[in-house]
Amino acid sequence: MSFTIEIPSIHSELEEQIQYKIDQKAKPIGSLGQMEEIALKIGLIQGSLTPELKKPVMLTVASDHHICEEGVSPCPTEITWQQCLNFLNGGGGIGLFSQEYGFDLRVVDAGVDYDFKPHPKLIDAKVRKGTRNFYKEPAMTHEECLKALENGRKVVADLNESGTNVVGFGEMGIGNTSPASALMSVLTGMDIETCVGPGSGLSKEGVRQKAQILKQAIEKHGISADPFENLARFGGLEIATIAGGMLEAAARRMVIITDGFITTSALLVAYFINPKVVDYAFFSHQSQEQGHQKMVEYLGGKAILDLGFRLGEGTGSAVAYSVIKGSVTMLNKMTSFDEAAVYNTANDDIRIEA
Amino acid sequence: MSFTIEIPSIHSELEEQIQYKIDQKAKPIGSLGQMEEIALKIGLIQGSLTPELKKPVMLTVASDHHICEEGVSPCPTEITWQQCLNFLNGGGGIGLFSQEYGFDLRVVDAGVDYDFKPHPKLIDAKVRKGTRNFYKEPAMTHEECLKALENGRKVVADLNESGTNVVGFGEMGIGNTSPASALMSVLTGMDIETCVGPGSGLSKEGVRQKAQILKQAIEKHGISADPFENLARFGGLEIATIAGGMLEAAARRMVIITDGFITTSALLVAYFINPKVVDYAFFSHQSQEQGHQKMVEYLGGKAILDLGFRLGEGTGSAVAYSVIKGSVTMLNKMTSFDEAAVYNTANDDIRIEA
Repeated sequence: MSFTIEIPSIHSELEEQIQYKIDQKAKPIGSLGQMEEIALKIGLIQGSLTPELKKPVMLTVASDHHICEEGVSPCPTEITWQQCLNFLNGGGGIGLFSQEYGFDLRVVDAGVDYDFKPHPKLIDAKVRKGTRNFYKEPAMTHEECLKALENGRKVVADLNESGTNVVGFGEMGIGNTSPASALMSVLTGMDIETCVGPGSGLSKEGVRQKAQILKQAIEKHGISADPFENLARFGGLEIATIAGGMLEAAARRMVIITDGFITTSALLVAYFINPKVVDYAFFSHQSQEQGHQKMVEYLGGKAILDLGFRLGEGTGSAVAYSVIKGSVTMLNKMTSFDEAAVYNTANDDIRIEA
Repeated sequence: MSFTIEIPSIHSELEEQIQYKIDQKAKPIGSLGQMEEIALKIGLIQGSLTPELKKPVMLTVASDHHICEEGVSPCPTEITWQQCLNFLNGGGGIGLFSQEYGFDLRVVDAGVDYDFKPHPKLIDAKVRKGTRNFYKEPAMTHEECLKALENGRKVVADLNESGTNVVGFGEMGIGNTSPASALMSVLTGMDIETCVGPGSGLSKEGVRQKAQILKQAIEKHGISADPFENLARFGGLEIATIAGGMLEAAARRMVIITDGFITTSALLVAYFINPKVVDYAFFSHQSQEQGHQKMVEYLGGKAILDLGFRLGEGTGSAVAYSVIKGSVTMLNKMTSFDEAAVYNTANDDIRIEA
């Protein structure tokens, strides 16, 4: 079994026109740095010189991980469902930051070990109550893995049908740095030690043991040439659901915002399924988790923020959106030299000084 | 003649209480990184566990510099007044970003070589039409320098009387990297070469010549032990006005946001007048101008953003405000473990994993 999806190319044919529009703004060329790059990329994604960000939604995807039986996390797994309820009530980091930074939050239950009551902001996409302990057996069957990917696709497709064209991703799942690290190592070929960090606060010895457990799990199941197979062996249900959601978002030319280590590992999986997904993705921030920076580099990305976050949930995606939004506003609304009747430095090869 | 101002100490006695409040939030301790530091600092500034940011104002202070006669900038000086008009009409970087990021913009004419018509957003604080060419004579007389400092104080005092407690600083002034670099060198003792950069796009040879001119100017006037005297010899009217504004803001326990190289040089001047000013200041972003990072370090600061900006005007202050605002929202509104009924990890010395 494998998994493929078509993603259209971005509108590279507009690059020169969009860049010209940016360069005509009343400012020295390039002086808004990364915001200019963001504006250009969104123009290319939407194939427009006047792109729009519509009805932004934050998808915080949650799941449990029975590899926690091996002691890979110091936290009680009940925190996963407790935090989901907290988010739904507007609490926690992402419950609050969704509001603060203009997202409509949806908590997606991809595989939480808990029976939630229905809630208007909760999307039921539960495949099973937590992935299997992949130290002992593959995390998911092929069918489960496929279902999680398809669930993610459906959630994003539904949003897009309702008019959303920008989606932030976050996650909640005690133990989920373990599948993320394993996938990173298996997919990129980097040593497991490079891919493992303290997560939520493991001791040095804890990190060493976690790396050891993941190493043994990888030796046990082996590394496949098929990313779908690796996802089934080592993944998490939230990671698979997010990966599916990202692929669908790219297929629909939506703007994708990744958060920290976990959601970026989902993008990595998606990238191995179809590398074009990265053309639609923004890396919101540089996480403190050591593997994250290497993953962002591997994907050819550049983080927007570096605020020392290591919370996940989508908090980095939310905060970075203020920069993304401002970039699009700049492209659409900043006056050009002509409009401003300011000495046009862009055409004369000299630049104004602020 | 000298210049002094009293600044109260921040409320360090509340540090433990505010930190405790942050640590009780439903998240791993420290996992919101720099946003936690920002929240703490604003709590200390306002002496409150529930600080508020009220009526944020962006002060974009403009002036001209007759040292441009020496060819230190490749740009026509008319751009200074043209951009001021552009900003007043909601154009340019800061005209747009003030709106986008929630600031009421005021353009302060500290010494523009132009006769503006009255405008509701323009504050007339003109001391003279541009500083003197300090390659030949001191930039300002003592009286002019004092007037600029006092003007800055008055502008900020008036804002504060109307309910503003957070003020972003920006600037506009063709040629103003020259006084900023000279002041940086004179005040910190760093080589002029370390303090000079390409500004708005000088060539390598242009940078070398600019450094040479500034070096000769410094040799001509000498370095005083009195920061006020150095400001008069090498400063700009916008730099002096901003420095005065920052000192008054600190005296009134207001939140100060610095932008790039120029406004940070004003903070440096203010710091030498009263070092406590830095306790009230946030460094919005890391400018591309090489001296900026060294200045931020010198002042013991840490930039919030690093987006490769080199525009000035207050654009960095504006964008970073979205992070500052979110930090205060976090302190005030993020649920604690108790409120969220999530396993309280803060008191049990283990941490939750996102």
